[in-house]
Amino acid sequence: MAKYKLEACLTPSIFDRYSDPEAVVVVIDTLRASSAICNAFANGAESLIPVPDLEEAKKFKDKGYMVAAERDGYVQEFADFGNSPFNFTPERVRGRTIVYSTTNGTRSINQASSCHSVVVGSFLNISSLEKWLLDQNRNVILLCAGWKGRISLEDSVFAGAMASRMLDSGKYSSICDSVTIVLDLWKLAKNDLLAYIDKAAQRSRLREKGLDDCIPFCHEADSTDAIPVLEQDRLVNINKKPV
Amino acid sequence: MAKYKLEACLTPSIFDRYSDPEAVVVVIDTLRASSAICNAFANGAESLIPVPDLEEAKKFKDKGYMVAAERDGYVQEFADFGNSPFNFTPERVRGRTIVYSTTNGTRSINQASSCHSVVVGSFLNISSLEKWLLDQNRNVILLCAGWKGRISLEDSVFAGAMASRMLDSGKYSSICDSVTIVLDLWKLAKNDLLAYIDKAAQRSRLREKGLDDCIPFCHEADSTDAIPVLEQDRLVNINKKPV
Repeated sequence: MAKYKLEACLTPSIFDRYSDPEAVVVVIDTLRASSAICNAFANGAESLIPVPDLEEAKKFKDKGYMVAAERDGYVQEFADFGNSPFNFTPERVRGRTIVYSTTNGTRSINQASSCHSVVVGSFLNISSLEKWLLDQNRNVILLCAGWKGRISLEDSVFAGAMASRMLDSGKYSSICDSVTIVLDLWKLAKNDLLAYIDKAAQRSRLREKGLDDCIPFCHEADSTDAIPVLEQDRLVNINKKPV
Repeated sequence: MAKYKLEACLTPSIFDRYSDPEAVVVVIDTLRASSAICNAFANGAESLIPVPDLEEAKKFKDKGYMVAAERDGYVQEFADFGNSPFNFTPERVRGRTIVYSTTNGTRSINQASSCHSVVVGSFLNISSLEKWLLDQNRNVILLCAGWKGRISLEDSVFAGAMASRMLDSGKYSSICDSVTIVLDLWKLAKNDLLAYIDKAAQRSRLREKGLDDCIPFCHEADSTDAIPVLEQDRLVNINKKPV
C-alpha cells in the first residue's frame, strides 16, 4: 500500500506552494546543470559548489577553486571551462572541488534546502536515484528548475520518468495534477526521447549556440550511480565507491 | 505566415514572466469560474463583477447586488446562490449585474488587467472565442488560473484546446514550452475529454463535496457565443446579440 506522497513542482517560482519540510527534493535541470553535476561525480569530483551568479563564481576563482562558468554560451574569461557536462572530464575534476555557476539550477537547490534533503537528478543517474529515493521512506518532491522562472519541457519529461518509477514501486501515491501532467508527457516521450526533446525551446537555444552536442548524452540512462546530495553549501556524492 | 506569438502561463504565480502589455490574455478557470461566467452571459447577465474575497462580496451584497459566493462547497449565508454555472439561470441573471466571488479566477483577471485586454475562456464559448481572438491581430497569452498558485490539469487541457485552434489558423506561432505541453495534453484528452478530466485533482475535490454535477456541462463546446471582456472592474459580453 502506498505510504508516501509524490509531488511535482514544474517551476521554482511556485515551490513555496509545496510546503513539506520533511520531504526529499529532487532538483532537475537536465539541460544542462543536473546532467553536468552527475557527470562531474561520475568522473570522480570530490564536491561541487553551485553558485547563482558570475560574481560569486569569480570570488571562488580568486580563492583558487576550479570554476565552470559561462553565460550565453561563452566561457567566462576567469573560468577554467564552460557548463557542458562534457567539460567535467576525469582529468579536470577527479578528487577536486569544482565551482559551477548555474542560474536556474542553483536557485532551485537553494529553495529546496529548507526541506529534509536535496538530491540532484538526471537521466545519467536515474536508476541509482530511484533506488536511493525508495530507501529514504519519505515524501518526494520533484522540483524542475525550468528556465527563467518558466516551465521547461525537458525537465518536465524527466520528472515524468522519475514519477513513473516512483509510482510503479507501489510505495508512493499522488494527487498532484503536475504529476499527472508529467506522467503523460513521459508516456508520449519515452519511445523516442530525443525526438520528443527536439520540441523543447532549450534545445533550440542550445543549438543556435552550437552547444547542443551534449543532448543525447544528457538523455542516456544510467551512465553513473552517483547520488549528489546537498551538504551545507556543496554537493557531495553519497554513493561513492571505495577506490 | 505566422505573425503573432502564442504563449501559455500554467499558473498565475509566474505571470510576471510573461511581460507583454500589448497582448490579449485569455483567463481560464474551467472548473468552475470561467464556465460559470460564460454561462451567466449565455443567460443574459448584463455584467459580472469578479471579487477575490468574501468580505468584498459581502460589501457588494450590502449595496444591493446579487451575489454568488461559496467556500468549500457551502453557499455563504449572505449570498444569493453558490458558484456553480448551473446557478446562473436566466431567471436570476437576465439584465442584471452579478457579483461572483472566486479566488483563483479573480487573481488571474486582476493580474491580466495590465495587458491590452482580458477575455474569459471556457469550452462553453470556445469557437466564438477563437473567432474573436483571430480578429484581434495581437499576441495571445493563455493564462490558467490553476488552484492555489499551483497548476491544474483541467485548465491546462483547455489551454491546449485553444492553442491547437490558434496554431491551426496559421496566424500564430509559439516557442513556449508550456504551449507544447498543453498541446500534448489536449491530444491525449480530446477523444474522451471527460474520462481524461476524471484524473484532475479538482474533479475529486468537487466530487467529494457533491459539486461535480456541472463537469460534463463545463466540457461541452459552444453552448454560447458570449465573449466576456474586462471593462474597468467588471466583465461584459461584447458579443451580445440585439434583443
